[in-house]
Amino acid sequence: MDLEQFTCGRRSKWLTESGPDGEIVLSSRVRLARNLRDLPFPFLANDSQTEEVLRQVGDVCRKHPESFAAFSFMPLKEIPAPLRQVLVEERLISPLLIREARNSALLLHTADDISIMVNEEDHLRLQCLLPGLQLEKALQEAGKYDDLLEQELDFAFHEEWGYLTACPTNVGTGLRASVMVHLPGLVLTGQLGRVLSAVTQVGLTVRGLHGEGSEMGGNLVQISNQVTLGQSEEEIVRNLHVVTRQILEQEMQARRLLLNEGEDFIADRVNRALGLLRHARLLSAGEAFQHLSDVKLGVDLGLLDSVPPQVQKELMVIQSPACLQLAAGKELTELECNRERSRIIRQHLQ
Amino acid sequence: MDLEQFTCGRRSKWLTESGPDGEIVLSSRVRLARNLRDLPFPFLANDSQTEEVLRQVGDVCRKHPESFAAFSFMPLKEIPAPLRQVLVEERLISPLLIREARNSALLLHTADDISIMVNEEDHLRLQCLLPGLQLEKALQEAGKYDDLLEQELDFAFHEEWGYLTACPTNVGTGLRASVMVHLPGLVLTGQLGRVLSAVTQVGLTVRGLHGEGSEMGGNLVQISNQVTLGQSEEEIVRNLHVVTRQILEQEMQARRLLLNEGEDFIADRVNRALGLLRHARLLSAGEAFQHLSDVKLGVDLGLLDSVPPQVQKELMVIQSPACLQLAAGKELTELECNRERSRIIRQHLQ
Repeated sequence: MDLEQFTCGRRSKWLTESGPDGEIVLSSRVRLARNLRDLPFPFLANDSQTEEVLRQVGDVCRKHPESFAAFSFMPLKEIPAPLRQVLVEERLISPLLIREARNSALLLHTADDISIMVNEEDHLRLQCLLPGLQLEKALQEAGKYDDLLEQELDFAFHEEWGYLTACPTNVGTGLRASVMVHLPGLVLTGQLGRVLSAVTQVGLTVRGLHGEGSEMGGNLVQISNQVTLGQSEEEIVRNLHVVTRQILEQEMQARRLLLNEGEDFIADRVNRALGLLRHARLLSAGEAFQHLSDVKLGVDLGLLDSVPPQVQKELMVIQSPACLQLAAGKELTELECNRERSRIIRQHLQ
Repeated sequence: MDLEQFTCGRRSKWLTESGPDGEIVLSSRVRLARNLRDLPFPFLANDSQTEEVLRQVGDVCRKHPESFAAFSFMPLKEIPAPLRQVLVEERLISPLLIREARNSALLLHTADDISIMVNEEDHLRLQCLLPGLQLEKALQEAGKYDDLLEQELDFAFHEEWGYLTACPTNVGTGLRASVMVHLPGLVLTGQLGRVLSAVTQVGLTVRGLHGEGSEMGGNLVQISNQVTLGQSEEEIVRNLHVVTRQILEQEMQARRLLLNEGEDFIADRVNRALGLLRHARLLSAGEAFQHLSDVKLGVDLGLLDSVPPQVQKELMVIQSPACLQLAAGKELTELECNRERSRIIRQHLQ
């Protein structure tokens, strides 16, 4: 159990490190949905059935201590509410896992961003998150643990349909691959709508930072595959990789346009954002998010040289109400959150 | 002729120094209008008549070299246009003197803010400008030179009406006394309208920074006497002094209210203003003016300790287009002005 480690500043690698094309692609994520053959899906299962899922997963861990040595096994109900929320903010668990905490558990790698959620929508959800555009590597990493689990557990698998899942949209590979991209250039040149509409036409889905239904704040967009059936895992990941590269090209082109046709204005914009973040005493999450996006753009364009390049990515998460309350060790009013958020951001950007 | 001195950074004392109640009262001004008895007012005079005015004033200066040693005598047409504009911005001459430059001249004290305009609306306009609330001292200073001129020149004076002037509103004492006050507290608490309406009801006039018809930017207000007739010079000045003290009290009360009921918000506001001024790359005059007003409020309230207290007053003037163009030595586009303005402000506020 690594609660201590979390509250004392463990930060996900995707937040603190960069990867290939990391200026624009903040992270790559691969998630596999798996279910045990002889037990009902969690939303239909009774307590003893979900306990049975937990027991079987625990057995695998105990049987392969070398493979799972780096993982912490945490029953969800033992994780304090603010910390759960932080895990969501860092995208290591889903909001659903919190809402359905009954007999749910989390297997979390203590160093890498690999997590296995037990009794979420499916019995098992394996996720690997990496900084930058590294979908294939994320698939390999997740696949490694998937293979290990599959050796020991009897997964619900249909010859024709593939892996069976609680929601039909995941049937087949059970794979959801996604990238989180930062597209301020396309936003500022008014091209984002056109680009995203092209993306959805090739069978991909566009979402905000925290998945389905979440807002598209800070010029951040998540793009993921919609289809899990009729394509191999490698094809799905390859397709998303190719589209992401194309979006990346268009974003780069938009940024060149901004520099060529209005450097004064863009330099003014990113410097103002930095000035506000360095000086404001009250910042709402939404405002901070937008300014952090501008600051990141400024760093990427070489217009701001006094800011560490990864700081904005980390700040996007640590300024969330959950992180602020966890750090403060108590509930905070909105005013207190805004005050604390601005203090932390000032501290990091001085 | 002190052109050199001006372009190389002479700054008016009212801008660089503070005086009594100087946090709120930026300056006190006394101006006396005088005309020569046997010559028509400038707007009715022909060239030889305005030349005659110039000649007579010149004679007085030559006759009293010790009194006028510290003055520079500058025919208006010899002062380059950008410098004239800067003299207006520093409130040492009136916009009218520029518009009617024919045979006009300026006698300007090289150290103190005492100026004598020749052939403006009246033959002579003597002005003394001091930092802070020092109306009586300004009247004494102006009076000293008025007495000297009156010894030598035959002023148009009517037993019943007093000094005669080109515009009937100046007849009598020929005195206009004014204060420039910074009232962000009354603006932010929504009380300015009420206070100014009370001020006009006691026979005073309210104007923006550059006199009649100018905008009320940066929470700065000029208050001056409307009546010049039927009151002694001392009464006029005393009355304005008393009203100014009352406004000052109300402004202080408004500031206490801001601190007591919303210190977070006011601290946020003034820090944001400082952040923007320290970081922006393009600043319009209007925006800069507003932020400078907020920064000054922050300094006055003790919320910003890293800013020299007089810097904002000076910046209010040196960021004007005329000053920027004079410093650059060439005409500037609006974009260039905004860029240069932000550069100078950044430099001063680091």
